[in-house]
Amino acid sequence: MQEYTDIYKKELLEQIIPFWEAHSLDMDYGGYFSCLTPGGEVYDTDKFLWLQARQLWMFGKLYKEVESRKSWKKIALNGAEFLSKHGRDTEGNWYFSLDRKGNPLVQPYNIFSDCFAAMAFGKLYEIEPRAEFAEIARNTFDNILSRRQNPKGIYTKAFPGTRQLKNFALPMILCNLTLELEPVLGSEDILDFTDELVEMIMSQFLDEKSGLVLENIGPNGEFVNSFEGRLLNPGHAIEAMWFLMNIGLRKNDQDLIAKAEEVMYRQLEHGWDEKYGGLFYFMDIKGHPPQQLEWDQKLWWVHMEALVALAKAYACNGSARAAEWFERVHTYAWQHFRDMENGGEWYGYLNRQGQVLLHLKGGKWKGCFHIPRGMLEIWKTLEQL
Amino acid sequence: MQEYTDIYKKELLEQIIPFWEAHSLDMDYGGYFSCLTPGGEVYDTDKFLWLQARQLWMFGKLYKEVESRKSWKKIALNGAEFLSKHGRDTEGNWYFSLDRKGNPLVQPYNIFSDCFAAMAFGKLYEIEPRAEFAEIARNTFDNILSRRQNPKGIYTKAFPGTRQLKNFALPMILCNLTLELEPVLGSEDILDFTDELVEMIMSQFLDEKSGLVLENIGPNGEFVNSFEGRLLNPGHAIEAMWFLMNIGLRKNDQDLIAKAEEVMYRQLEHGWDEKYGGLFYFMDIKGHPPQQLEWDQKLWWVHMEALVALAKAYACNGSARAAEWFERVHTYAWQHFRDMENGGEWYGYLNRQGQVLLHLKGGKWKGCFHIPRGMLEIWKTLEQL
Repeated sequence: MQEYTDIYKKELLEQIIPFWEAHSLDMDYGGYFSCLTPGGEVYDTDKFLWLQARQLWMFGKLYKEVESRKSWKKIALNGAEFLSKHGRDTEGNWYFSLDRKGNPLVQPYNIFSDCFAAMAFGKLYEIEPRAEFAEIARNTFDNILSRRQNPKGIYTKAFPGTRQLKNFALPMILCNLTLELEPVLGSEDILDFTDELVEMIMSQFLDEKSGLVLENIGPNGEFVNSFEGRLLNPGHAIEAMWFLMNIGLRKNDQDLIAKAEEVMYRQLEHGWDEKYGGLFYFMDIKGHPPQQLEWDQKLWWVHMEALVALAKAYACNGSARAAEWFERVHTYAWQHFRDMENGGEWYGYLNRQGQVLLHLKGGKWKGCFHIPRGMLEIWKTLEQL
Repeated sequence: MQEYTDIYKKELLEQIIPFWEAHSLDMDYGGYFSCLTPGGEVYDTDKFLWLQARQLWMFGKLYKEVESRKSWKKIALNGAEFLSKHGRDTEGNWYFSLDRKGNPLVQPYNIFSDCFAAMAFGKLYEIEPRAEFAEIARNTFDNILSRRQNPKGIYTKAFPGTRQLKNFALPMILCNLTLELEPVLGSEDILDFTDELVEMIMSQFLDEKSGLVLENIGPNGEFVNSFEGRLLNPGHAIEAMWFLMNIGLRKNDQDLIAKAEEVMYRQLEHGWDEKYGGLFYFMDIKGHPPQQLEWDQKLWWVHMEALVALAKAYACNGSARAAEWFERVHTYAWQHFRDMENGGEWYGYLNRQGQVLLHLKGGKWKGCFHIPRGMLEIWKTLEQL
């Protein structure tokens, strides 16, 4: 497995980061372009908060963990200025999207904008310790917690009471966010909270019988036989498992690490497409047709997060099972997502057969995040061996 | 073309309608099941208002135009009872979905629930002229008009003012709905209104330069260079063109019929997949990647609506171009959507290559509507020749 250290390091530093440095910076209005063609041309100038915040975070992370390169800090600060100026409504909620100049386009209906903004300003504070950055991170985190029971607020379309569902995404993202914000929030506050999150995931969202992680459950963790209740998202579950491994590492909880690893394998085995390779995007736990028409597509982040989870599992115990799965996913990903012609960032969306479905390097949901974060995680994880 | 009369009549009466009669009726709670496997088993019991209303309408239509079979009226009345009891909130807005028993699940954020409900009760009034049915249709229609400028109401996520967009779906659906409701609303009210709708579609949504119908435009019909503004939905545009042909027939406006036919061909030519056959679901007018991951899939309704439009064009002028296109789409549809093993209703969702993507006959968006309505339209249209 050690041979992958240099492969991921080289790809990150020579292909991925230069692509975003060359094409994503909006020199006129600040912030980042995320909608980029395979060659790096901007095909749309809207600014989606998830991706603005994630790119800011990524360059902060590079500055902190790879090299304190001035240009990387400058890129992070460019995003921070744009976001702190335009990103929030008067109550501190983060919009979902802005136009190129920063005018709000879509209301703050999506709490993950806030999650990624808190993560971004937390990281920025670590490399540029201005009080205002810590304050944005802290206030946003508090706001997330206060909105937690009803994250969509006035934008929710669910009729109250008929079918109450808890969604997996927020506790999953919070597992990562709380560790990310430890330098800002302090250790005391976060450690109890991660216990609560781990408990909720492992004893409620994890369906014991099948070993699969459900995307939506009833108020007490019960299975709800509906489209939402039957939904599986293997990539989501696998990504969550490396967040849990990180919590295990942080707390030196070997049981949690081992449990997370087992759950990860189960999602990989169930989510793998035996016919064409790659991991499915969505599945139905009873095998019924899912609502999502894109269910059989192969997405960049699913595969990169699986590689991160496998690298972490391997680093913890050196198991052959982790190495075999890593090689399988690595081979699929490098053969299908990597752009052999143009280089740079990877493609994001393949059809079931593994052909490029959308000719883009970035869009509304894909930016400078999963690929560089994953490569950095894999490099740094395997380097320790 | 006349040989298709019997083909569509036979398929409708021997395959499609018997399938829904056998499998979709909820004898315990009323209303209809729409989530059906290829063999007709119910895999989910939620009740989606679009599909409840459309099935009610369909059986009303069959009773009126095919044969006054008692069982068909009973099926329509079964839906009407369920819908009038459970379908609306206290202000008369129609919910988006209900659970099996009729408890509201999803709020009335979607004005098309109201459109299909008005259409259903209007048709029901024609076969069973109770004042309450006409009243539901009329009140719902009035409510649609009053919500027309802001159809999503409190559920809209667009920030007011930054980028105002008009969406094609509502004027398009209203073209059909106004004609449908003529027996309830009276001719005077509807004819001026259809003029306004036709004008809006042909001089605003139709992009003159490209000849393509845009899904979203600025307040004065201008092109808006964004994901929404660049969006094309060939099936939507083609379906709208047969609604316009119907308005042309109703008003004896030959120019409108000819214009609608020309626009229809342009969407067919632009939307046709030269590589694998079939019509794409979504496209971007500038050729950029659309937001919709399902853009290259082949959907049942797109192809059935194209067949209806082509049959109507052929009936108006007997042109070879209409006949050739009809045969092309017919061949594709019957080879790919029709279920050669189980018979009954057609499959709904194919991948780009034409393979079945979701093994279902009905779901959240597919019910007893496009296939039987289209077959009946084609049969009745070609029969006149």
